[in-house]
Amino acid sequence: MSSTTLVALLSGPDQPGLVAKVSGYIYQHGGNIIHADQHRDPEENIFFQRIEWDPMKTPAGEAAKEFTEFARSLGMSARVADSSHRPRVAIMVSRFAHCFHDLILRWKAGELPAEIVAVVSNHPDLEAESRHYGLPFYHLPIDPAQKEASEDHQLEALRPHRPELVVMARYMQILSSSFLDKVGCPVINIHHSFLPAFAGGKPYHQAYRRGVKLIGATAHYATPVLDDGPIIQQDVVRVTHRHHIKELIRKGRQLEQAVLAQAVLWQLQNRILVYGNKTVVFD
Amino acid sequence: MSSTTLVALLSGPDQPGLVAKVSGYIYQHGGNIIHADQHRDPEENIFFQRIEWDPMKTPAGEAAKEFTEFARSLGMSARVADSSHRPRVAIMVSRFAHCFHDLILRWKAGELPAEIVAVVSNHPDLEAESRHYGLPFYHLPIDPAQKEASEDHQLEALRPHRPELVVMARYMQILSSSFLDKVGCPVINIHHSFLPAFAGGKPYHQAYRRGVKLIGATAHYATPVLDDGPIIQQDVVRVTHRHHIKELIRKGRQLEQAVLAQAVLWQLQNRILVYGNKTVVFD
Amino acid sequence: MSSTTLVALLSGPDQPGLVAKVSGYIYQHGGNIIHADQHRDPEENIFFQRIEWDPMKTPAGEAAKEFTEFARSLGMSARVADSSHRPRVAIMVSRFAHCFHDLILRWKAGELPAEIVAVVSNHPDLEAESRHYGLPFYHLPIDPAQKEASEDHQLEALRPHRPELVVMARYMQILSSSFLDKVGCPVINIHHSFLPAFAGGKPYHQAYRRGVKLIGATAHYATPVLDDGPIIQQDVVRVTHRHHIKELIRKGRQLEQAVLAQAVLWQLQNRILVYGNKTVVFD
Amino acid sequence: MSSTTLVALLSGPDQPGLVAKVSGYIYQHGGNIIHADQHRDPEENIFFQRIEWDPMKTPAGEAAKEFTEFARSLGMSARVADSSHRPRVAIMVSRFAHCFHDLILRWKAGELPAEIVAVVSNHPDLEAESRHYGLPFYHLPIDPAQKEASEDHQLEALRPHRPELVVMARYMQILSSSFLDKVGCPVINIHHSFLPAFAGGKPYHQAYRRGVKLIGATAHYATPVLDDGPIIQQDVVRVTHRHHIKELIRKGRQLEQAVLAQAVLWQLQNRILVYGNKTVVFD
Repeated sequence: MSSTTLVALLSGPDQPGLVAKVSGYIYQHGGNIIHADQHRDPEENIFFQRIEWDPMKTPAGEAAKEFTEFARSLGMSARVADSSHRPRVAIMVSRFAHCFHDLILRWKAGELPAEIVAVVSNHPDLEAESRHYGLPFYHLPIDPAQKEASEDHQLEALRPHRPELVVMARYMQILSSSFLDKVGCPVINIHHSFLPAFAGGKPYHQAYRRGVKLIGATAHYATPVLDDGPIIQQDVVRVTHRHHIKELIRKGRQLEQAVLAQAVLWQLQNRILVYGNKTVVFD
Repeated sequence: MSSTTLVALLSGPDQPGLVAKVSGYIYQHGGNIIHADQHRDPEENIFFQRIEWDPMKTPAGEAAKEFTEFARSLGMSARVADSSHRPRVAIMVSRFAHCFHDLILRWKAGELPAEIVAVVSNHPDLEAESRHYGLPFYHLPIDPAQKEASEDHQLEALRPHRPELVVMARYMQILSSSFLDKVGCPVINIHHSFLPAFAGGKPYHQAYRRGVKLIGATAHYATPVLDDGPIIQQDVVRVTHRHHIKELIRKGRQLEQAVLAQAVLWQLQNRILVYGNKTVVFD
Repeated sequence: MSSTTLVALLSGPDQPGLVAKVSGYIYQHGGNIIHADQHRDPEENIFFQRIEWDPMKTPAGEAAKEFTEFARSLGMSARVADSSHRPRVAIMVSRFAHCFHDLILRWKAGELPAEIVAVVSNHPDLEAESRHYGLPFYHLPIDPAQKEASEDHQLEALRPHRPELVVMARYMQILSSSFLDKVGCPVINIHHSFLPAFAGGKPYHQAYRRGVKLIGATAHYATPVLDDGPIIQQDVVRVTHRHHIKELIRKGRQLEQAVLAQAVLWQLQNRILVYGNKTVVFD
Repeated sequence: MSSTTLVALLSGPDQPGLVAKVSGYIYQHGGNIIHADQHRDPEENIFFQRIEWDPMKTPAGEAAKEFTEFARSLGMSARVADSSHRPRVAIMVSRFAHCFHDLILRWKAGELPAEIVAVVSNHPDLEAESRHYGLPFYHLPIDPAQKEASEDHQLEALRPHRPELVVMARYMQILSSSFLDKVGCPVINIHHSFLPAFAGGKPYHQAYRRGVKLIGATAHYATPVLDDGPIIQQDVVRVTHRHHIKELIRKGRQLEQAVLAQAVLWQLQNRILVYGNKTVVFD
């Protein structure tokens, strides 16, 4: 086996023989399938597939390009990634540092197949920590009166780092539709509630007032509608009447870290397909 | 130790010395405390306590009455139950039978310290099963045009059974404010979502459309506002894109059973205090 | 789509092109793949696949037979099931009735694609309940001095029902190696601990004495070595110092039901491949 | 309310009136009880209590001393802590850094009411990170041929820091009985399995070979018998046949962090009483 594998995420209208055609193509081109998983949405009649194979030849880039064209000939859209490529990731963060540290430490421990390339914040708090981790840090405050201009400064800071993923690691500002259009890559956000419950501000306070017995966290793709993007991962933890808001926040931190890290890992491993407002996660 | 214990649920404005006064009272009257648990809401300044003791004298009923008066003298309201008393429980159910069977089988296995006394349904489906379990069954359809009259028939059927708890075991009608006033005992409902997400009808369909990664169930006290009563217990189970609505429903059944049974058990064990729209559960 | 699908479980030495060959075979024979999932054990170099397809022709039985031969030609062993076939299931139970009721009620609710055909017990307790469910009941006590003869009586009772699965629903006897050889179908057991912790007798008592903070249940295939067969499913529930053995047993009942029912459902859906002492579960 | 509270952990032979006597004592001395929780082991006839109160007078130290004497007069042993006291914690670690970072970051985020005072390691790897966190680091290799001498060097390094808790944050050596005697404070260890399953070395490898469907982590007090001390906290995470040892290790890291941090927090909040080989955790 060569050291590089290809991972394709395909989707398109279902039709008989897709599994056979895709696997047959890879086999005939000398490739060796390592993993394959598929799904059909019976209502929308869409076929989804994640397939990972060793192309057994170099350069892998060429095999990827040919495969994309082949998928198009089947009426499918495909995104093919080379396993030796480590996507460039930018982190946006405000003041709460737990997701920031957690992602970077996982990365340094070899858990995330990526390169974290930059940290952008609307507060200066994490500058020294970012530099300690060897990461460029951009303190770019948001002026509510000139939000678009503020966001343009963020985009300018990000641009030279060519991010392939932006992670909002408890970044407490809403990214505008215009930012999301211009940034040119997926943006993953962590919301500290079990969506769709408690969207919007201060979800732990909302949860406390409602008297729920579990609190949650939700990782989702950022879209222009607040806390409404396609959900990638969710989890919950039990609370009781003894837990005041401060304890909900403490318990939530661990939950947020775990849920966000899982979503980011799946994104980096090319396991997520979005359709409509939902996700298929080939876990 | 005598075979009967007393359980008191107290609540009222917090003041210094409450724990000492309550436990001192019991000790001075010859009682032996078996369990005690308390809680203070720091914002509302309310003190809550559950205390279980062996009064070491008969009749226990007298000790209970005297304790209630003592609690009142401290400015507290108290509800005292005798452990040898098995509350009378009525079940309301529509067509889905899983919670109905589960509660009755737990009761027959000795898990619920209660007497299930009657089954009321707006459908005839579970008549034979109810009779097999030795329970009177009342088929009382709801005429939407005459809802109050229909509910009055239900109340008449329940009255001779003197229920101390009504359990809506997937009873698919909304109980009116008038019914809840007249029934004269707590009513526990199971809603098949993680409230406050997906209140109202067809929550599994709502969850499927939103693409959540966990589905939930919530047991709560019924109040005139739909799916908005004080939450007693909640739990969730993981789902993926592979689970269509039918599988959500199947996975949800087990969740609903477990969450409802836990809430009913806590109610029967006098572990729940309601305040505002929240609960304190002394687990 | 015709109403019948086929599900094949394949396993054998890994080799390039297996996915392509299998899916190509189905496509060329006019079949339409509905689901496919595969796995490779990198150490043992074994390939496992579960593939479900609509053969688009009748009789399905012939398509199944041809496919099995095709798989053999690839060096794979295959088990092909027709989705319209509902396997015949026998239940073995002692006195604890919760798993017995749970399985039968799930079956009656349409959750289990099977026919429960008989109940065998070493105690007479569940005879009336079995008959209420419309199931033949065999009370066959085990004489420890003549275990083989006792088991032979059980096998004689089971034989005319031709079981394709035997479920030990808290059957408190150990089945001998000879019984397992002769019964001619898989046997699934539920053990009330998180195996390999607390194998053997009275696991809740063992767990209580050790002071664990979670108790578990394990569904596994019965093998001649007690509590050592391939594990299908496990789950746990939290306990505290407040839970005495009686509460562990109560909490465990629900856990046992859920874990056993999940294992049985996977077995009935042909989702489990055993190799060595482990399972691959295509969930 | 004054800023300081006292927390007492009491245990001793059960007798009537203990709750009344303890709460009465505090009330009569002008104290105000904030939390109280108790437990009785019905077999051993031991009474356990955790009680937190505002002594309403200074110095708190005197109130603590008087209370300890009062408890002794009831035949109880008591440990009284002053909430303004932040226990001194030493970390022992080998090469795996995740628990080390997690504990320190929680501490820096204000989650742990403690002072981390030193890091001791048998490897030099975490020296720079320790210094970045502002912590003295002692690289003290273990010479297996002279284990006692090696441990004595560790004890000498720890002594000037007067630790009140030692946390083995994936410290991969066994501490001898002699070390545990001499260190003079509790030692908490994290074992990467659901004990008592998979005690000893390489538990993820053991779990993988056994084919379990959940992996676990256990925080316990270190005792001379390996992986056998009183269990404080446990948790598990689901795995499937798809997860190879490398993924078990990755999933386990997060679990280990969470379980260890919870156990340490409970210890720092004086919530744990040990008796025999079990714990009472007043959560």
